[in-house]
Amino acid sequence: MSSQNIRLVTLVGSLRKGSYNAALARALPGWAPEGVEIHPLPSIGTLPLYDADLQDRGFPQEVTALAEAIRAADGVVIVSPEYNYSVPGVLKNALDWLSRLPEQPFAKKPVAIQSASPGIFGGARMQYHLRQVLVFLDAYVLPRPEVMVGQVMGKIDDQGNVTDTATRDFSQGQLAAFRDFIGMMRKG
Amino acid sequence: MSSQNIRLVTLVGSLRKGSYNAALARALPGWAPEGVEIHPLPSIGTLPLYDADLQDRGFPQEVTALAEAIRAADGVVIVSPEYNYSVPGVLKNALDWLSRLPEQPFAKKPVAIQSASPGIFGGARMQYHLRQVLVFLDAYVLPRPEVMVGQVMGKIDDQGNVTDTATRDFSQGQLAAFRDFIGMMRKG
Amino acid sequence: MSSQNIRLVTLVGSLRKGSYNAALARALPGWAPEGVEIHPLPSIGTLPLYDADLQDRGFPQEVTALAEAIRAADGVVIVSPEYNYSVPGVLKNALDWLSRLPEQPFAKKPVAIQSASPGIFGGARMQYHLRQVLVFLDAYVLPRPEVMVGQVMGKIDDQGNVTDTATRDFSQGQLAAFRDFIGMMRKG
Amino acid sequence: MSSQNIRLVTLVGSLRKGSYNAALARALPGWAPEGVEIHPLPSIGTLPLYDADLQDRGFPQEVTALAEAIRAADGVVIVSPEYNYSVPGVLKNALDWLSRLPEQPFAKKPVAIQSASPGIFGGARMQYHLRQVLVFLDAYVLPRPEVMVGQVMGKIDDQGNVTDTATRDFSQGQLAAFRDFIGMMRKG
Repeated sequence: MSSQNIRLVTLVGSLRKGSYNAALARALPGWAPEGVEIHPLPSIGTLPLYDADLQDRGFPQEVTALAEAIRAADGVVIVSPEYNYSVPGVLKNALDWLSRLPEQPFAKKPVAIQSASPGIFGGARMQYHLRQVLVFLDAYVLPRPEVMVGQVMGKIDDQGNVTDTATRDFSQGQLAAFRDFIGMMRKG
Repeated sequence: MSSQNIRLVTLVGSLRKGSYNAALARALPGWAPEGVEIHPLPSIGTLPLYDADLQDRGFPQEVTALAEAIRAADGVVIVSPEYNYSVPGVLKNALDWLSRLPEQPFAKKPVAIQSASPGIFGGARMQYHLRQVLVFLDAYVLPRPEVMVGQVMGKIDDQGNVTDTATRDFSQGQLAAFRDFIGMMRKG
Repeated sequence: MSSQNIRLVTLVGSLRKGSYNAALARALPGWAPEGVEIHPLPSIGTLPLYDADLQDRGFPQEVTALAEAIRAADGVVIVSPEYNYSVPGVLKNALDWLSRLPEQPFAKKPVAIQSASPGIFGGARMQYHLRQVLVFLDAYVLPRPEVMVGQVMGKIDDQGNVTDTATRDFSQGQLAAFRDFIGMMRKG
Repeated sequence: MSSQNIRLVTLVGSLRKGSYNAALARALPGWAPEGVEIHPLPSIGTLPLYDADLQDRGFPQEVTALAEAIRAADGVVIVSPEYNYSVPGVLKNALDWLSRLPEQPFAKKPVAIQSASPGIFGGARMQYHLRQVLVFLDAYVLPRPEVMVGQVMGKIDDQGNVTDTATRDFSQGQLAAFRDFIGMMRKG
């Protein structure tokens, strides 16, 4: 039944047009398990740098819109590269803004994490830092399976299509586990 | 001798005008040990959000200016709040930009870290994440003494002056250790 | 109804007889919310140091007994000091043994974390490392509220009784949240 | 000149006889750069589990012997597997004992880290946790190059010889950088 459907949203941590992580996020709706729909969140690229003085003059409209889209979803899939062994500043900046809202949108929100990188580790170091941030935000983060797509250059073609079947399988496996994780948390 | 002087620069991780961390950074030159001078780096608040497409069109002038000021210094003191158990997005964004430069300015650069926060921990969780970032950047980070100024609201007055003598003493102790750390690394 | 009762077990990370963390763990049953019972796990102090060659000759009886007690529980409260900014070797050693069992006992197991220390941070740095370990073990770790009891020397008397009411209140708050977290995850 | 020689010691984090990390550590003396000698530290497998009550009755002889060997060295190369996304309990237990000594042997001691694992990451997650521990211990840890030997099973033969030339080259590169790092820190 549609009332039972799970609605996920994807939050992308890179601004680059040809971003591998954006390509991975775009592939997720096509890999969604039965009963799950997946939609993109708006880009975080137009947010100003977080500044409490700015906040005092009112939250930017992009921040409140992003928060509402997250609140309306049953879960968030964060898909992000690793920059300098940690969370990209651009993604952290978005989380810093969102965290200041009176009704913080990640509280009790199920979250899954995916990352892709040209290197071998596939963004692993980013993921553990992001998990610590999500402790503060009181999110319910799926522990496993983890999705870290290393050596991504050979796995996504020039048109931004994910061509690697192992990546698809890992990602689908996580989406199925995430659906069950969210289902488990819903009151019967 | 002036040729032996150590020149430090401070990098502040908060944009707020009344920032406690900015206030702490402003106090450092007055606490500098014999033979050490301390100057502020330009604000990181005018940098665009990192975007590789933007980079392809040339590094913003703010980034190259920041990098040159860091390269010209004998060491950097990063003074930053903790946001959501990690490095502020605004600071990470600056590091993300700097890390892409052909001659990365933090390579082999001595770095010390200070943080202040209203809470009890004084920004500790930010510091360990920042240390991991600085491994990637190949910086030489002073291990101890660590400076984490908790409950900072009672330690800085309305004019932004650090009034707490324990904070001054801890900070001076770190600056003296940092001077020795840098001196140790210099060829005789 | 008793069939609805939640059964928790406590895992203590210190071997010292007068351990503050052991004292905190001993206080938890008296603070249990309605419908929750809390029992101690056996000490981890008689386990050998993990050695895969030893494992090849059969898991020590202490390890399998510990694993069974964890499997039989609805959730685990780990109560541990911080040693050297991380998880005590003695606790990690127990987790290393448990992780090798064919049916790993922490998989999908709800876990809450408490820590106490003489210092101000109350073991915070230990908790974030432990959370990363528990990602590998696929545990469901309660994100918040966190319980970190700093300056514990003034909060526990010579007989090992927790005398600090704030510690009791924080700890009770976490136990109530943990009960709800476990209840949420149970199939209706 | 022998007086200029750098003396390193290796600390192995696994007890298994056929340990890949032990094999890697055994290979290091053969890869030492000019002017560097490398010797193994005694095994950490006979240390008791850390217990402050035990410490009160006197440090075990194995602990004081280990500490003296570390103090006598110019630098320590820690070679360790990753267990459960972190430092092995057995290695952490040794560090916990060493950290309690009145004259803590890692203070101001140059340290380099290597790790090997059957998986792709080569022990990376262990290394960042170990680095945080070494901040507390006030060690001078070489930032880069990092040595993480993934998929180690194809790189070491049945006799425990490292057969992979890339591993040798990475490891030699780190040893040369470590020699320079130590040389830089020595007073002229």
